Parts: sequence; structure tokens; C-alpha cells
Amino acid sequence: MKKTAVIMGSDSDIKVVGKALDILRSFDLPFTVHIMSAHRTPDEVSGFARSVAENGYGVIIAAAGKAAHLAGVIASHTPLPVIGIPVSSSDLGGMDALLSTVQMPSGIPVATVAIDGSANAAWLAVRILALEDNELSLALNMRIRVMAEEVKKKNLLLQQQIKKEAE
Amino acid sequence: MKKTAVIMGSDSDIKVVGKALDILRSFDLPFTVHIMSAHRTPDEVSGFARSVAENGYGVIIAAAGKAAHLAGVIASHTPLPVIGIPVSSSDLGGMDALLSTVQMPSGIPVATVAIDGSANAAWLAVRILALEDNELSLALNMRIRVMAEEVKKKNLLLQQQIKKEAE
Amino acid sequence: MKKTAVIMGSDSDIKVVGKALDILRSFDLPFTVHIMSAHRTPDEVSGFARSVAENGYGVIIAAAGKAAHLAGVIASHTPLPVIGIPVSSSDLGGMDALLSTVQMPSGIPVATVAIDGSANAAWLAVRILALEDNELSLALNMRIRVMAEEVKKKNLLLQQQIKKEAE
Amino acid sequence: MKKTAVIMGSDSDIKVVGKALDILRSFDLPFTVHIMSAHRTPDEVSGFARSVAENGYGVIIAAAGKAAHLAGVIASHTPLPVIGIPVSSSDLGGMDALLSTVQMPSGIPVATVAIDGSANAAWLAVRILALEDNELSLALNMRIRVMAEEVKKKNLLLQQQIKKEAE
Amino acid sequence: MKKTAVIMGSDSDIKVVGKALDILRSFDLPFTVHIMSAHRTPDEVSGFARSVAENGYGVIIAAAGKAAHLAGVIASHTPLPVIGIPVSSSDLGGMDALLSTVQMPSGIPVATVAIDGSANAAWLAVRILALEDNELSLALNMRIRVMAEEVKKKNLLLQQQIKKEAE
Amino acid sequence: MKKTAVIMGSDSDIKVVGKALDILRSFDLPFTVHIMSAHRTPDEVSGFARSVAENGYGVIIAAAGKAAHLAGVIASHTPLPVIGIPVSSSDLGGMDALLSTVQMPSGIPVATVAIDGSANAAWLAVRILALEDNELSLALNMRIRVMAEEVKKKNLLLQQQIKKEAE
Amino acid sequence: MKKTAVIMGSDSDIKVVGKALDILRSFDLPFTVHIMSAHRTPDEVSGFARSVAENGYGVIIAAAGKAAHLAGVIASHTPLPVIGIPVSSSDLGGMDALLSTVQMPSGIPVATVAIDGSANAAWLAVRILALEDNELSLALNMRIRVMAEEVKKKNLLLQQQIKKEAE
Amino acid sequence: MKKTAVIMGSDSDIKVVGKALDILRSFDLPFTVHIMSAHRTPDEVSGFARSVAENGYGVIIAAAGKAAHLAGVIASHTPLPVIGIPVSSSDLGGMDALLSTVQMPSGIPVATVAIDGSANAAWLAVRILALEDNELSLALNMRIRVMAEEVKKKNLLLQQQIKKEAE
Repeated sequence: MKKTAVIMGSDSDIKVVGKALDILRSFDLPFTVHIMSAHRTPDEVSGFARSVAENGYGVIIAAAGKAAHLAGVIASHTPLPVIGIPVSSSDLGGMDALLSTVQMPSGIPVATVAIDGSANAAWLAVRILALEDNELSLALNMRIRVMAEEVKKKNLLLQQQIKKEAE
Repeated sequence: MKKTAVIMGSDSDIKVVGKALDILRSFDLPFTVHIMSAHRTPDEVSGFARSVAENGYGVIIAAAGKAAHLAGVIASHTPLPVIGIPVSSSDLGGMDALLSTVQMPSGIPVATVAIDGSANAAWLAVRILALEDNELSLALNMRIRVMAEEVKKKNLLLQQQIKKEAE
Repeated sequence: MKKTAVIMGSDSDIKVVGKALDILRSFDLPFTVHIMSAHRTPDEVSGFARSVAENGYGVIIAAAGKAAHLAGVIASHTPLPVIGIPVSSSDLGGMDALLSTVQMPSGIPVATVAIDGSANAAWLAVRILALEDNELSLALNMRIRVMAEEVKKKNLLLQQQIKKEAE
Repeated sequence: MKKTAVIMGSDSDIKVVGKALDILRSFDLPFTVHIMSAHRTPDEVSGFARSVAENGYGVIIAAAGKAAHLAGVIASHTPLPVIGIPVSSSDLGGMDALLSTVQMPSGIPVATVAIDGSANAAWLAVRILALEDNELSLALNMRIRVMAEEVKKKNLLLQQQIKKEAE
Repeated sequence: MKKTAVIMGSDSDIKVVGKALDILRSFDLPFTVHIMSAHRTPDEVSGFARSVAENGYGVIIAAAGKAAHLAGVIASHTPLPVIGIPVSSSDLGGMDALLSTVQMPSGIPVATVAIDGSANAAWLAVRILALEDNELSLALNMRIRVMAEEVKKKNLLLQQQIKKEAE
Repeated sequence: MKKTAVIMGSDSDIKVVGKALDILRSFDLPFTVHIMSAHRTPDEVSGFARSVAENGYGVIIAAAGKAAHLAGVIASHTPLPVIGIPVSSSDLGGMDALLSTVQMPSGIPVATVAIDGSANAAWLAVRILALEDNELSLALNMRIRVMAEEVKKKNLLLQQQIKKEAE
Repeated sequence: MKKTAVIMGSDSDIKVVGKALDILRSFDLPFTVHIMSAHRTPDEVSGFARSVAENGYGVIIAAAGKAAHLAGVIASHTPLPVIGIPVSSSDLGGMDALLSTVQMPSGIPVATVAIDGSANAAWLAVRILALEDNELSLALNMRIRVMAEEVKKKNLLLQQQIKKEAE
Repeated sequence: MKKTAVIMGSDSDIKVVGKALDILRSFDLPFTVHIMSAHRTPDEVSGFARSVAENGYGVIIAAAGKAAHLAGVIASHTPLPVIGIPVSSSDLGGMDALLSTVQMPSGIPVATVAIDGSANAAWLAVRILALEDNELSLALNMRIRVMAEEVKKKNLLLQQQIKKEAE
């Protein structure tokens, strides 16, 4: 199974990124986590990005806030799919990070998920990696059904609660 | 090679989607194109989305404008990676389509690219499909180098032009 | 009297939706409440939406946040009027939910109320249901007058308070 | 059948409003059209709004741009459901009209449709009026199916065109 | 001296409006305060607005949030200058109230001040009323100088503090 | 009668400002027009602004685009009421000019009108100057009635046209 | 070494500006700090700005919120480079201050940094002053390396922590 | 005199950048122009940026649109002052490029000018370079005076034209 690299631009992004790690772990997917700044350690970022394809990685997840260049810079140094998480670290509710991440020029795409949407970054990585892995695909399908069941269960609880209140 | 499905919400989106088709063709990737509306033909959309995984598809690209639900609706019916193209069909410059596409809830991700960024939707599909296909991976690497060369060539032409003007 | 269905995309929306339920109750209107997710339980949503017209419902109220597709998806499966409440669950103050709810394509309208405006969703349902129900229409007219009186009373209290302070 | 009143704030809104009239006509619904300005002829607006309920109207559609108060002012003078069309007459792409129309305070709802979405204003009026009118309900259901068929037909044409090009 | 009327759309706006009252009081200007809702008590608003010119008022200040129609509705019923205060009562930081207040159509102006800028509403009223009142004009000029002195004093304190820290 | 000064930041603003001049002329109000830039000729602006009160001016109208400081700079040098017209000279639809004009700090108000709303700047000047001038007040009232009549006439024409089409 | 002047529009901006002072101090750069308001003490601002070039200053840093004219006004009175810090003092997350600061007309530039980005204002001043000062240039280069090392150290700590958790 | 490097992300930015070149030429400043893409030719960008300090450059100007990373990437590889021009190449009026350019993290500043404000990028470069160059400083002062004279001349022409029309 190819590895996933999860990169954050600053250690303050760790609490956003945590949810992604939980999901990757829950699927027993191999992954590594890194703090690298597109602006303060640009050579580490480009060096790492250039090496991921040959080092057994399949997907890169990058989380950054404000003028969020991290995902785009990585995507410019590797042909692997790069998933960008815009982090709402500024006063603008993450709109700056969203636009900096998603509005990439033709040729160098970043697969952008919701503002602070690190769970979905992991879910997207799973969907991509499951494409050529039957076992992971089965696990993914089951988890999607579980999510549906959780919503149905909450609905059932609501119906019971309403009935009780009506009695 | 797994197929790519390119779905647009309205036939007016064809000129945006065209650039994606050109890129898929240039890599000789198998794909199909569809007009399906999340709102006017919801059963077609869900029926198709439920069937893609078993019908040999690998990636779904969905383009829609305004309250752009198409990509999200498809992602809720298939475990395959879904790429969303927000189309700028409204007065708001595509901000409505961008937010409707990217701000998905946890569990059902849409890999969102730039507003009207259909070329990047295709480039992202290629990156995903190349993960397990060495030949495609080589072709992708070459094309990325070609893109770089084109920029360098434009720069050279600019330098020559400047020199001439200076003489 | 036709029933109103109040649907929320997540159980976290219950505190927003509560105000709508209070108003429906105050008019003794029959209603049911549901948790259904356009993205996690799409089949429940479409199944329910397809059945509402023949099951005695008259109006559907749907509340959802972020890429708020719930109201739009329901409106694509029923000819009944659907009222959408954009919920401000994200960093963007509900602008994402507002645009995802209101910017529907021609043919499938969603009657959108203010961000977190669940009270107005109920008031709108009452206005619609009162169209063919004289008793409800009278009750509605009285309540509108009561609201006006409350504002006038607050103004009177303010005038008295000002007078006192001036003495 | 109750009448629909279609009101525009300025004669320049007529080309936006035209699509609503076409749809109302196509269902043979009785309607009247008016130019009234919430700001220049406020007494005409309030006078008209106060009289609609007793004059056989069922739904009011109001279209206005910029600081679009028209729908809100009408809703404050009648208990009938009022549908607001935000018109994009300004440089802000209609965002000003959208917020002025949809962000109504509790108690006085405006059923807001998309920016320049006058077709949907009419579709929403039909959905509301069809609630207690079986014939209209049947016609509405048929038209929704026709819309679906049109999308399917466009898709078929696309498939044929693609086949041809492939030959 | 002509009176100033200060009108708020809801009693929750009182803490915003308070700063305006303090400034009017500090100039010994006659004023009255009112709670009136453009949407819940439209007849009170229009009745009052129609009467202000002949009842000795000179300037009207209106504060409202969300779809803030109050100032515009008043301006449509009186030829007096109307000052609008957009109140940030919603999730959108007052952008909805600002656009609803300032984007008035030609002919019916609202003199709009900053979001929650009730102090400036009062300062503007003073500037207008001082036009034909020498005493008020002198008082205004003095107060402007006092404001300047306060800034200069803060600067002096800062310089002294810096000097101390340097010693 | 006190004079009105109309100042624009650049000669390219003349076509926006023209509508204000037409309205001032139609009331036979004395006015002067100036091109002065808050940024390129700051001393002209402050010199002029300091002199207006003693030179017979009553109201200042200032139109500027982008980082529109002109009205604010003038207001900081005179106690007269200053009306700001945000001009939509940039790609942002005038949002930059609107915020730069309206969001003034406490003590130095700018009476802001709509983006490109120069007509309303003049109407507001007339409302202010009419406060102490009965003749102007009568003229203003008449003109407001004329505006109302124009809307009513357009409505009548519409009704006749509809009748004809129905015959 | 030329001095840097740090100017804030209000004493409430001191906590934003503090980070800039710390950085200037850490390079032993000479600087002065001032409270001056473009709107309340315009003559102090223009007087100071006109004198900076001949008083040994090299760079001016100006911080202001809302309709943030301070940096622009200073830039219009001096040929020195002026750095603007938009302060997020309003409900709009600093978007008003950003646009008021950055959207300057041709000829009078303001070097704008991020919203509340006072650290970067100081870093930019250092970059400018280091252009002609080898010692400062060396110090700057070292500090940039130190920043990079800090990020690398955080990454190392993260790797060690992950290893421990895995054991 | 140190050189200025003007870099654009795409050859389509040449018409925006042209105005900057004209101004640099008018001051006889040495400069070079380059097409380099942060995303397509990242190694060219970083290689060039790393070399500018030792190759006689003093200021770097970088123009880019959409997710405009160019200026930020350059600033992360050189200690020289970097000026960023956000280019309005997208549907969002350049808001995406503005936020991507200005919202840089602490330590790596980009001196951002207005959207499409390439003239001001050059003016800012001149202000920076004039700091240690008396001749350039004199030329800059003269040009600022010339700009002021041009505005005054336009005002004079306006006055003459108004006088003529009045005769």
C-alpha cells in the first residue's frame, strides 16, 4: 500500500490536521506527518516533494492557512495527487486560504477540500488509494454504510424522543 | 485502464468542460461524457453514480454552476474519487458554485478545482489514474516537463525581443 | 390540514430548527421532524421526498449548513413547496449555506429564508398553509397584530423610561 | 384559482420579470403585473399590499435590485406568501439585492429565489398554488417530467454526436 | 433648534444606539427616541415619518440590522435628511445591513455611516444642524479640536512612557 | 443660499459626477466643481477643505474610487457635512471604495451614498440645504411627488400595454 | 542607519503594533513610535510626513483599521517607502482596512502587508534598510536561517513524538 | 544602481506589467524582465530568486493572478524586498490574487500593491531605491510634483470649461 504524507505549514495546524490522522489510522493506512513551511523552509518542501513519488508515497495532504501556498508548491514538484486543506487561521474565516489553495493555474491541480476540512482530506485520500486496492475499497464501502447508519440511528432516537414528549 | 466519467449539469457547461476532454484525449484515456442535472434528473444522477464503480470507472468529474450540487450528489452515491468543477454561470463570478462544491460535510469529499478550472480537473484525474499505471505516470511526467519548457521558451522569446528593442 | 415536514441535515442543527418547531406548535399545525443527510443518507432523503406529496404533507422545511444541498435535493424529488434554512455552521458566517440553498437553477425553486432564520421558515409555512384555510388565516392575522403590539409596547416602555430619567 | 401579483420596483426590471410571466401564462394562471417602487411610491405599495388578500390574490412576486426593500415592504402589509427576486442591477452582482431580500427579521418572511431567478419565482408560485388544486398539481408534475425529458434528450444528442465524431 | 429623531428597529439595538444619544445630549440637542419596526409596525413607521417635517424635526437617525429597510422606508416618507446606521446583528458582520442601507435607488438617499457607527450618525446630525446655527457650529468646532487634543495627549503619554522604558 | 462643492478625485470620475450636477442645476442651487486628489494634491484638498466653511459653502460632495480617501480627508478638515460617493473604478465593483468611504472612525463622519450613486449625493445635499430654506423645501417636495408620478405613469402604460396584448 | 517611524491611528492599535517594535528592536534598529490619526489630527500627520525625509527616517510603518487612510495619507506627503498594516478593528475581519490600504491610485504606493501583519511590516522594513547596509543584511540572512531552523526543530520534535507514540 | 527584476507568472500578464516597465524606464533604472511560473517552472523561480542578491538586484517585482504564489515563493528564497502585483485574471476581480499575495505568514513579507497596480509596483521600487541615491531621490520628488501639477492643470481646464459654458 502506498503511503500518505500529511504536511502542515505550522505546528499550530496540528489540531486541524488531527482529524485526518485519525481517519487514516482507522483504515490502517501507512502515513507520515511533517511540519514544513512553504515560506520558511522552501527547500525542505521542494526537496521532500521531489522525492515522494520514488519513496513509496501515493497521496500528499497539505494543510495551510492565510496565503496558503503549501499544497500548490508541493504539487509543482511532484506528479502525485495533492490534496489541499485551507486552514481558517486568519480573520477572514479561511476565505484567503481557500482561494490561495483552489485557484491553481492549468496544469498543476490541487484537490481542495472544505475550510478546516481535514477529515475530508483523509476520506479523499482513502477514495483514491482504494481505486486499486479491493480490501481498502471494501472497508471504505462499509464505513460509508456505517456513517449512514449513524445518521439513521440519530433520526430514530429523535423520533422516540418526540413520541415520549407527546405522551 | 479505468474510465473517467465527465458529467455536466447543463449543456451550457460544454464549453467549460471541453478543455478537460482535450486533456483526457491527449493521454488516450478512456472516458464518457454526460449531461445530467442533480435537480432536473436526480434519478439519472443517482442511478449512474451508484453504477460507476462496477462499470469500470475510476474517477468522476462533475461540472456545475450556481448552487452546484452535482459533484456532491454523485459523491454521496459512489465511493470513487469525485472531482468538482465550479462553473461561473452566475453574476457572482462562480463564488456560489465554488462554495456549493467545496464546503462538503465530513465523510463525503469532493476534490474541488478552480472556478472554470476544467483543465485541472482532467490533470487531477490523470494524477490519480497514474498512481497505479507506470506508462501513464511516465507520460504525465513528460507532459509536466513540456509545460515547463513552454514557459521557458516564452521567457527566451521575451529576452530576445527585449534585446532587439534595445539595439 | 396538510402536514409540515421539518428536516435537518445533522443533529447539530436542532437548536437552530427548534424555533421553527415552536412556531408550528403555537399554531397547532401537524408536523414531523427528521434527521436526514443529503450526503450520508441520500436514499432516505430521496425516498422520503418522493413520498411526501401522497402522505399528506403540504410544505417541507429543510435546514442545512456549509454546502447545503438538502433543500435542493428534496425539491428535486417533490412538487411541494420546499423552504430552505441556510445554517451558519462554518467559518463563513453561513454565506456558503445561503448561496448553496438560494442559487437554484430554473425549474426547481427553494424558498430561501435568512441565515439561521428558522422562525421565518415556519412563518412562511404558515402563510402558505393559511392560503386555503380560513381559521389558520385568522390566527395568522392575529399573530401578526400581536407582534406589532409587542413592538409598540416596547416603544411605550422606552418612552416611560425616558420620561422617568428626565424627571 | 387565486391570482398572482407580479410587482417590479422599476420598469428596467421588466426583462428579468418576463420569464416569470411566461411560466405563469404557460400554466394559464391568472396574474397581474405592476410597477411600484417601495421608495418612490411607498403608499401605492402599502395600499396595494394591504388589499391583495381580499382581492383574490394568493401569491405576490416582487422583483427589485440594490437595496431591494420591495418584497419585504409588501410582506409587512399582507399575510400572503411573498416571493422575492433579487435583481442584479448594481456592480455587486446582485449580492446587495440578495441580502436585502433574504435577511428578513423573524415574523415577516420573504421566500427568496436566486439572483435574477424570476423563472423560479414563478415555479415556486405554481408549487404553492398547486397545493390545493389537483389540476394544477397534475400539470406541475407533468412539466417537471418534461424538464427531465429535455435534459435526457440533450444527453442523448450528446451521445450520438460523440459516436459520430468517433466514427 | 430642530429636533432629532433616533429610531431603532428592535429594542436589541439600544446598546448600539446609546452612543448616538450620548453625543446628542453632550451638545444639548433636543431629540426623541423610538422603537419602530419597518416590518412589524410599518404603519407606525410611515405615519411617524410623514409627520416629522411638520413636527419640528430636522434630522432622522435610523438603526437596523440584517435586511435593514428602516432608514430607507423612512426616507421614502419624508423629505428630511435620514441617516442610516447598519447594525451588525447577523453572522455576516453587518455587510447585509450596510448594503441594505446604502444601496438606495436614485431620488431617495440615505446618509449611511459605518457598521455600528452610531456615534458618527450623531456627529453627522450635529454637522447638519450646525449649518444654520452659529452657536452649535462653534461648539462643534471646539469638540473637534478637543478630539484632536485627546489624540495628541495619548501620543505625548506614549512618548513619555517610551522615554521611561529607555532610561 | 449656501454653495455646494462637488469634488472628484480624478477627471475620469466626471461621468459619474455628472448626474449630481444635473440635479443641483435643476434646483438652481449654487455649486462649484473641482478635480483634487487626496493622494496627488493633498495640500490642495486640505487647503480647500479648511476654507469651505468661511467661503459660503454648506455641503461638500466628494467622489472617489478604489482606496477612496477623498471624502474622509475633506471631513477631517471641515465641520461641514461631507457626502461621499464611492466610485466603482476597480475590478471589485466598488466594494473597495464603499468600505474606504463609509467605515470612518468615530467623530469624523462621511454621509455615504450608493456605489456610483451621485444622483443621491445631490438629493441628499438638497435635503440638507432645504432644512432651513422654505422655498427649496417646497421645490423638493414637489420633485418627490413628480418622481412618484413618473412611476405611476409607467405603471399605467404597462397596464394599457397588457390590456392591448390581451385584446 | 536611517530611522523607522511606526505610526498607529489609535492607541487601541498598540497591541497589533507591538510585534513590529519587537522585531525592530531585535535588529537594534533606531525607530520612533507615534499615535496620530489621519482623521482627528490630520495636520499632525501631514506635518510629520512632510518632515520625515529630512529628519533621518528611511521607512514609515502605518497601522490603521476600518477606513484605513493613515498609510495612504502619509504616502501622499513623503517620497519615502510607506508600509501599511491593515488592522482588523471592525466586524468585517479587516477586509475594509485591507482594501482601504492596498487599493491606492497610481503614483502613491503603499506597501501593504497582511491583516494585523505587523511583524511582516517590520520584516519588510528590515529588508528595505538592509539593501544598503551589509551588516544588517548579514543579520537578516541569519535570522531567516534561524526561522527555518525553528521549523525544522518543530518537525524533528514531531517525528520523535510520533516514534514514541508508536513504541 | 541596483537592478530591478520584473517577473510575471504568465505571458498573458505582459499588458499589466507594461506600465511598471514604462515607469522604470522613465527613471533610467536598470531592470530585467522574466516569465517564470511558480507552479510550472518552480526550479527556475527558486534558482533565480536565490541568485538575485548576489547578482546586483535590489528589488524584485512579481505579478501573478488567481492563486498568486509567485511573489511569496520568491520572497522565501531571497532577503531582498519583494513587491507583489495581484493580477485580476479570474472571475473574482482579483480578490483571489490579492489574498494569495498579501496574507503572507510572519517572517516572509510581500509588499503588496493594488489589484493590477503595476504602476505602483514600479513607484514603490523607485521609492525604495531612492533611499540611498540622492539623484534618484531628486528625480522622484520632481515627478511627484509633476503628478500634482497634472491634477491641478486638469482642474484649471475644468474651471475654464465651466466658465465658458456659463457664458
